[in-house]
Amino acid sequence: MKKFIFYSLILLSMSIEAKPTNIIFLIGDGMGPAYTTAYRYYSDNPKTPKVESTIFDTLLIGSASTYPDDDTIVTDSAAAATALATGHKTYNGAVGINRNKQKLTSILKTAKSRGYNTGIVVTSELSHATPAGFVAHSTSRKNKYDIAKQFYTNKFDGKPIVDLMLGGGTKYFNKELTLGKRTKTVTKWLKSAGYKYFKSLDELDQLNTLPALGLFAEKGLTAAINSEHPDRLSIMTEAALRVLGKDEKPFFLMIEASQIDWCGHSNDISCAMAEMDDFAKTLTMVKHYVDESKNTLMVATADHSTGGLSLGYNKIYQWKADIVKQVHATTRRIAEQLEGSKAIATDWHKFIDFSLTESEERTLAAVIDNKDEIKDVVRQIIINRSKTGWTTKGHDAVDVQVFAAGVGSRAFRGFQDNTDISRKLNYYLINGA
Amino acid sequence: MKKFIFYSLILLSMSIEAKPTNIIFLIGDGMGPAYTTAYRYYSDNPKTPKVESTIFDTLLIGSASTYPDDDTIVTDSAAAATALATGHKTYNGAVGINRNKQKLTSILKTAKSRGYNTGIVVTSELSHATPAGFVAHSTSRKNKYDIAKQFYTNKFDGKPIVDLMLGGGTKYFNKELTLGKRTKTVTKWLKSAGYKYFKSLDELDQLNTLPALGLFAEKGLTAAINSEHPDRLSIMTEAALRVLGKDEKPFFLMIEASQIDWCGHSNDISCAMAEMDDFAKTLTMVKHYVDESKNTLMVATADHSTGGLSLGYNKIYQWKADIVKQVHATTRRIAEQLEGSKAIATDWHKFIDFSLTESEERTLAAVIDNKDEIKDVVRQIIINRSKTGWTTKGHDAVDVQVFAAGVGSRAFRGFQDNTDISRKLNYYLINGA
Ligand SMILES: [Zn+2]
Ligand SMILES: [Zn+2]
Repeated sequence: MKKFIFYSLILLSMSIEAKPTNIIFLIGDGMGPAYTTAYRYYSDNPKTPKVESTIFDTLLIGSASTYPDDDTIVTDSAAAATALATGHKTYNGAVGINRNKQKLTSILKTAKSRGYNTGIVVTSELSHATPAGFVAHSTSRKNKYDIAKQFYTNKFDGKPIVDLMLGGGTKYFNKELTLGKRTKTVTKWLKSAGYKYFKSLDELDQLNTLPALGLFAEKGLTAAINSEHPDRLSIMTEAALRVLGKDEKPFFLMIEASQIDWCGHSNDISCAMAEMDDFAKTLTMVKHYVDESKNTLMVATADHSTGGLSLGYNKIYQWKADIVKQVHATTRRIAEQLEGSKAIATDWHKFIDFSLTESEERTLAAVIDNKDEIKDVVRQIIINRSKTGWTTKGHDAVDVQVFAAGVGSRAFRGFQDNTDISRKLNYYLINGA
Repeated sequence: MKKFIFYSLILLSMSIEAKPTNIIFLIGDGMGPAYTTAYRYYSDNPKTPKVESTIFDTLLIGSASTYPDDDTIVTDSAAAATALATGHKTYNGAVGINRNKQKLTSILKTAKSRGYNTGIVVTSELSHATPAGFVAHSTSRKNKYDIAKQFYTNKFDGKPIVDLMLGGGTKYFNKELTLGKRTKTVTKWLKSAGYKYFKSLDELDQLNTLPALGLFAEKGLTAAINSEHPDRLSIMTEAALRVLGKDEKPFFLMIEASQIDWCGHSNDISCAMAEMDDFAKTLTMVKHYVDESKNTLMVATADHSTGGLSLGYNKIYQWKADIVKQVHATTRRIAEQLEGSKAIATDWHKFIDFSLTESEERTLAAVIDNKDEIKDVVRQIIINRSKTGWTTKGHDAVDVQVFAAGVGSRAFRGFQDNTDISRKLNYYLINGA
């Protein structure tokens, strides 16, 4: 009863506020609170006495619980995406369905049915768990071909529900799949439905009309720290805002910084900070759009935290952001490049600014013919030097933060469940514009 | 310049709001965001489908950075206490002074100088780092006798600045110390200054007048999970609110759940959750007081997080709150009691509800004559069973949460530095009442 009154009051306060026209929902996959803290010290200008605030600090407004609808407490990205996309909990692994295998309606589909243009911008493959939660229904996130197909088959009024799709996934979208009696790639189905197709980020300045599909990698885009385009999420977002913003229809846009999570799974802090940097640029751009447009709501959160990240470890009261900044590739890539090296110290400096100690070099030399062992050693050197702690290569259950700005943002203040975020957005979609 | 405008706006919005009369400042030592998340699942009623919100969820309003004034990023409790008490950063270990060894004025002393009654309620010794930051000035938190002395010598208008002191510390307060030409215990000095002295929690129902001193342990009070009075912080707080609340003067009260941090240092999750439970009861009581009084502000935060706690570890997507609830003593106490045991399985069940596996029992048996090794084994069993991750026996740098309610609470919304919390409270003390 108390809860009912509480929600009634929230809805009342929401109905008094101005209604948003456009909704931009941003998700930092795996971005628990230690990531935004780390990013502040990582991006700090050491020449000024104060630690500068980040865009995350500016936008911070609340937090959210992320537990799934099973007894694990620790969610995966599929259950979390389903919660954020549909307002309903489900079991780990499920996409857009509940524990009884019933299809759940995503807020993106609701937006479409209410006359919105819709967009999805991600750095993973488009058929990955988080974007999948907004488009598809599947008993398992692993059914990536089937999920890709649903980007074409899940329709409203005879048209696919996502007007703009930017991300990776040629592996899934450009493979011949059977649909009814015909066999064709999802990309071709979408093209025949009028989608303009983009194959490289450089072409995105020609993205001027909807619908459109852009696929920029076989699976996920190149990790920011390894990429020629470390700001690829920002590049895609800029194009998305341009094309969605100039249409007369309002828009719903989901943007995911997909790979913060992947870096977390690898316990690779420099990788994670480079992804955070791209996400921070994206948030800054979106915030600017929100400030200019006056009829847009932006809400950002994480689906869960990854890795049990801590700043400081092993009883040492220190975290060395400068060490993190001196690493310029993923540990995976460094390991691949060092494999079989005959000049370890020299090759090391192609990727990392700080020098190896004699002992570190000896440890590396002992495993130099085994990529996987090199990766473990490099990871441990960076952990030891930067004092970064990790407890898992999986997820953890700490609450995530909620960030918001623009019309209607007050509704996201304080603590809420991840399903509440979706329900509030849904309320705005139905009563708004 | 932007920052200046931002602060001017905050101060303007603060000056428009009603001013608080009483300020209750609560600190959960070591209580990072993973602790409040863990507590929600720990205190959840498993018989209801929903996960119930906690008092922390109800009060959540923002977050705070905690870095000290050196290059470590990871603060200790002394530097953090100084930041929270004085609004100024300092180096790790320093109490109430800055890096140039200049004395800083605490908001408690400002409150006293503005005609407030003042109180400190803690479960550590009163001379421990956090309460020390509000009362004393010392180049090192380790100078506990000198710090205890300052509870008497730091005066305003000829009287000690803390009217009500409740916590532990007979070791420091009841030892003969030299002051000028005389040698006496701090307790005796305070008695001669009119303080009524309380030796046990049971006597606190007779606490009806100020000034008063209550010392309930040699150093810290017994850990909640080991204690006959697991709600000892709540008991002290109830007495404090009664005596401070009935005086005509407004009051400033600092309450610390000191031992969440100590459990974190021991990587002892059940110990931490029992401390959280006492803190939750205390917050609920204070929130009730705030709701009734209409002229009180409560603000709660942590000084830092301890242990690099994560829910889920070692690639396992699960956290077992039920296991955490089945442990009924600190790992230290369990180890002491198991030492030399001839009936391990039976003795185990004096403290822990779940049964040992054969393999666990064998591991324990192998170290049963060594208390310290038993402690390590017991800790690891609880970690493995509950899937609780820890990266350090020290602190970590993740931002802490900010909780607030009552008049003026809006000023604490969103992200801020720990010094900002103190500055905002100071503003209210100077312009308020
Ligand atoms: Zn993940
Ligand atoms: Zn500590």
